[in-house]
Amino acid sequence: MLRLSRSILGFENLKVRMMSSITESFQTAQQRLKHLKDEPDNTTKLKLYSLFKQSTVGRVNSKRPGMLDMVGRAKWDSWNSLGDMTQGEAMQEYVKLVNELSGSNSTTEETTNNSGNLEGYPGLKIERRGKLRIICFDKPKKKNAIDTQMYRDIVSALSVAAKDPETSITVFTGTGDYFSSGNDLSNFANIEGTIKEAAENAGHLLRDFVGAFIDFPKPLIAMVNGPAVGISVTLLGLFDAVYASDKATFQTPFSALGQTPEACSSLTFPNIMGLAKAGEVLFFNKKLTAKEAKDRGLVTEIFPDASFRSETLPLVEKFSQLPVNSLVYSKELVRSQLNDRLHKINQQECDRLVERWQSADCIEAIMNFFSSKAKI
Amino acid sequence: MLRLSRSILGFENLKVRMMSSITESFQTAQQRLKHLKDEPDNTTKLKLYSLFKQSTVGRVNSKRPGMLDMVGRAKWDSWNSLGDMTQGEAMQEYVKLVNELSGSNSTTEETTNNSGNLEGYPGLKIERRGKLRIICFDKPKKKNAIDTQMYRDIVSALSVAAKDPETSITVFTGTGDYFSSGNDLSNFANIEGTIKEAAENAGHLLRDFVGAFIDFPKPLIAMVNGPAVGISVTLLGLFDAVYASDKATFQTPFSALGQTPEACSSLTFPNIMGLAKAGEVLFFNKKLTAKEAKDRGLVTEIFPDASFRSETLPLVEKFSQLPVNSLVYSKELVRSQLNDRLHKINQQECDRLVERWQSADCIEAIMNFFSSKAKI
Amino acid sequence: MLRLSRSILGFENLKVRMMSSITESFQTAQQRLKHLKDEPDNTTKLKLYSLFKQSTVGRVNSKRPGMLDMVGRAKWDSWNSLGDMTQGEAMQEYVKLVNELSGSNSTTEETTNNSGNLEGYPGLKIERRGKLRIICFDKPKKKNAIDTQMYRDIVSALSVAAKDPETSITVFTGTGDYFSSGNDLSNFANIEGTIKEAAENAGHLLRDFVGAFIDFPKPLIAMVNGPAVGISVTLLGLFDAVYASDKATFQTPFSALGQTPEACSSLTFPNIMGLAKAGEVLFFNKKLTAKEAKDRGLVTEIFPDASFRSETLPLVEKFSQLPVNSLVYSKELVRSQLNDRLHKINQQECDRLVERWQSADCIEAIMNFFSSKAKI
Repeated sequence: MLRLSRSILGFENLKVRMMSSITESFQTAQQRLKHLKDEPDNTTKLKLYSLFKQSTVGRVNSKRPGMLDMVGRAKWDSWNSLGDMTQGEAMQEYVKLVNELSGSNSTTEETTNNSGNLEGYPGLKIERRGKLRIICFDKPKKKNAIDTQMYRDIVSALSVAAKDPETSITVFTGTGDYFSSGNDLSNFANIEGTIKEAAENAGHLLRDFVGAFIDFPKPLIAMVNGPAVGISVTLLGLFDAVYASDKATFQTPFSALGQTPEACSSLTFPNIMGLAKAGEVLFFNKKLTAKEAKDRGLVTEIFPDASFRSETLPLVEKFSQLPVNSLVYSKELVRSQLNDRLHKINQQECDRLVERWQSADCIEAIMNFFSSKAKI
Repeated sequence: MLRLSRSILGFENLKVRMMSSITESFQTAQQRLKHLKDEPDNTTKLKLYSLFKQSTVGRVNSKRPGMLDMVGRAKWDSWNSLGDMTQGEAMQEYVKLVNELSGSNSTTEETTNNSGNLEGYPGLKIERRGKLRIICFDKPKKKNAIDTQMYRDIVSALSVAAKDPETSITVFTGTGDYFSSGNDLSNFANIEGTIKEAAENAGHLLRDFVGAFIDFPKPLIAMVNGPAVGISVTLLGLFDAVYASDKATFQTPFSALGQTPEACSSLTFPNIMGLAKAGEVLFFNKKLTAKEAKDRGLVTEIFPDASFRSETLPLVEKFSQLPVNSLVYSKELVRSQLNDRLHKINQQECDRLVERWQSADCIEAIMNFFSSKAKI
Repeated sequence: MLRLSRSILGFENLKVRMMSSITESFQTAQQRLKHLKDEPDNTTKLKLYSLFKQSTVGRVNSKRPGMLDMVGRAKWDSWNSLGDMTQGEAMQEYVKLVNELSGSNSTTEETTNNSGNLEGYPGLKIERRGKLRIICFDKPKKKNAIDTQMYRDIVSALSVAAKDPETSITVFTGTGDYFSSGNDLSNFANIEGTIKEAAENAGHLLRDFVGAFIDFPKPLIAMVNGPAVGISVTLLGLFDAVYASDKATFQTPFSALGQTPEACSSLTFPNIMGLAKAGEVLFFNKKLTAKEAKDRGLVTEIFPDASFRSETLPLVEKFSQLPVNSLVYSKELVRSQLNDRLHKINQQECDRLVERWQSADCIEAIMNFFSSKAKI
């Protein structure tokens, strides 16, 4: 009983933390809305207006405008139609709608900003250098944690890179000290609606995200500039070369969080390092140094942190000059007997995580995680 | 012809050595009988009496007791019914019957002796420390060689550990200097009956033994405290973490003994270390140091011999605190595409060994082994 | 257009170089003909005569001999029947015919020359030492590059070694500084006929060559005495132990030559070293030192170059004393779940190479290779 009460208390506590995270997503979405290439139609604009008002004000609190103020009246009606929707729900609906709008945008032609980076990917910096395409986790204040929008954007960025005949090699790296701290735990904020629905949606998103890496037809290279955690580690098992700074570390604390492996690491890690060394990492949360990760085959080469980018970038630029067909066909051969198995384990892993995310183990472990963070 | 005569001579020599081994099993069985939880019924008691007499005395050598001594008469009849059964056969029947009795016992609730260890496992010491269960090879005078009874008891101990909700992690280690010298070659003593039958029985036992490791649903950790030989090495390929003393060594002298790999090592070793490094170990009897075994991925970490237990035990105790469901589900994912293949290769390996054990290669190699031991 | 012209020019240049290579094969074939065990029948002799004349002289340039000179007339008729066949085509037909004749010869009993080596394998030195059979690349002036004839002879030498009950282990090594520089690029000389036919023939040859390694039932050991390139590296993934000199290097420049992996390396290399380390080698032409190749599991052990042969030879000789049945059955177990997958990937790799060899990528890359060589 004591335990249960602690859970409930912790759960409320978690909700408060998560609301601040929803608020943050809501603010990002507002920025994002400004950069849409195509202006939304009037119906969508009304929807955006009403969700924004419900989010910031709550239930409609003014009188219905008169018949002659047709625009004001349409806005009021739309806001009013949201009834008792909570502010949290409204923010999430707003975020979701903006995401849909920018998602359909990102399939159009690429636009470059002043610094030569591709636009429209908040939290990511996407750069083209000749036949090289560099996707950079770019949220250094949050240790490059991957939020829901970034998952979606990476899927779309990979799809563009796969189709672009001028791209031969795609690189992932991070801005600042971290490669990536992995899944943004504030993604768990999406537990408005039932937990079950949220877990299932997250499962589908994860499956599609990992699937995009499995199916990516051109070489993928990781330049791991610093610590990597969770899914930013497990994904490496699907890469075609992994270069790491000597300050990089690798940790997958699944069981500590009541969770289970993802990104096909249940299959790739034992293939790479054998069952015992994989077990220590996947089951027992072992944190690997760059040296250990190289010895276990997860990392290809290590470079000194100070010269990491200046040594690895010329290397991958050289690779990007190789005949693209040979690269694609070579990768196709390597994956010919593997990709079916990867998709199968990806599905199994996601199904299990959907169950885990709804389990007491996981909820309690995540609360403990936040509590211990709060103490520091 | 010369070669054949040497074989026959060696074979007789082998029989003498093996008789001493049967005698030993017979003595162990007598001890074991005293610790049965449930008293055998009267029919079984009579059977045990008659086999004991035939074993120690031989064919009945007294007159049938008179009609009034009903118990004496029943005993005499039972003994007499064994006719010309040899003493060796009688000992083996006795051992077999005691094993059956204690086997059916071991599924009942666990009992603990004064030192906190579970009872009823001669040659093994089984200890529970919180959610950790430690199965210890405990026959240091025989370098922790695994005899037929230990094979059976380990299957049963694993079955109990799998079902016990209070056990999260199971550890194997050894008492004394050795981890285990592997298969007790005096198991080959069971060649009363035809060699064919004995080989087939041993094949079934081995298949079930290895099968219990394949199917074990919770993490298995090996604490390899010293030299490991044969099946105590090959089994490691099925473990989820392997910690080794820096004095541990690893050797699988299959071909030197005219045999072939077992415990799925035909599949796990190439998966762990690649075909070439596995070939050297599985085909050419290469003995690995702890360092080499770690470099090849068979061992996870090495610890100084002096502090081996004091460093590894806290580690595995910490692991045992992790949420058991996450551990079980993580292992299930890792094994989802593997266990069918493991069972298949296990069967193939056992079938091949049943053939090998009946081959001249093997019989001669084992005799040479005993001869060379005798010379030292 | 500029690019195309360069291709055509380069292509002509390539043809000149290749003609010198055809001439070389033609000369070797003449030597080879002298060592046939069985004399060809008269029809074959006539065919050989006419192809030789067409090769060296061209179209028949004398009058038809009179009716009484029956032999002279038969020769003239045969030569005349070749019509306008070019000298290049005639040389290739001649080489092909001699190969067929010596191919059918090599299945007969083995003959040994003065230095104890088996005869009839130009470019190879095949030696028997007890139960050891050593196949040595023996074309040091061409860095032990493997030409078409050597591919065929190795298939036949492996077939003999597999069947010979006195052979337990087969070793590959090289004469001189190199292990092997891989595929003899002058094999591309066989582009008389259409390129398509030549590519398809080469694809069949490669498939059968690699297939012979996949199916070889006894342990295969490589003693890599020096640099290894291309197929002499990828084949190592099919070996059961690989010993290397510390001066050996390992390179597979597929994509640099517009090609794709062969010899099942698409499957074996990721199995041995993981996807990322394999990717660097198979996609990005990474040249490995002996130490790196050992760390990645491609090499079993490294020995100092000065004592390489004197240290490794006693080792493999000792292995060759092990019971051959145990070796064969052990290897059979290891390969039981693997060989079907190896044959499948072998076929896929060959199909892809047949496509690649006809691609502009590949033709241009090979021309660049020859040009850069010419510049040195």
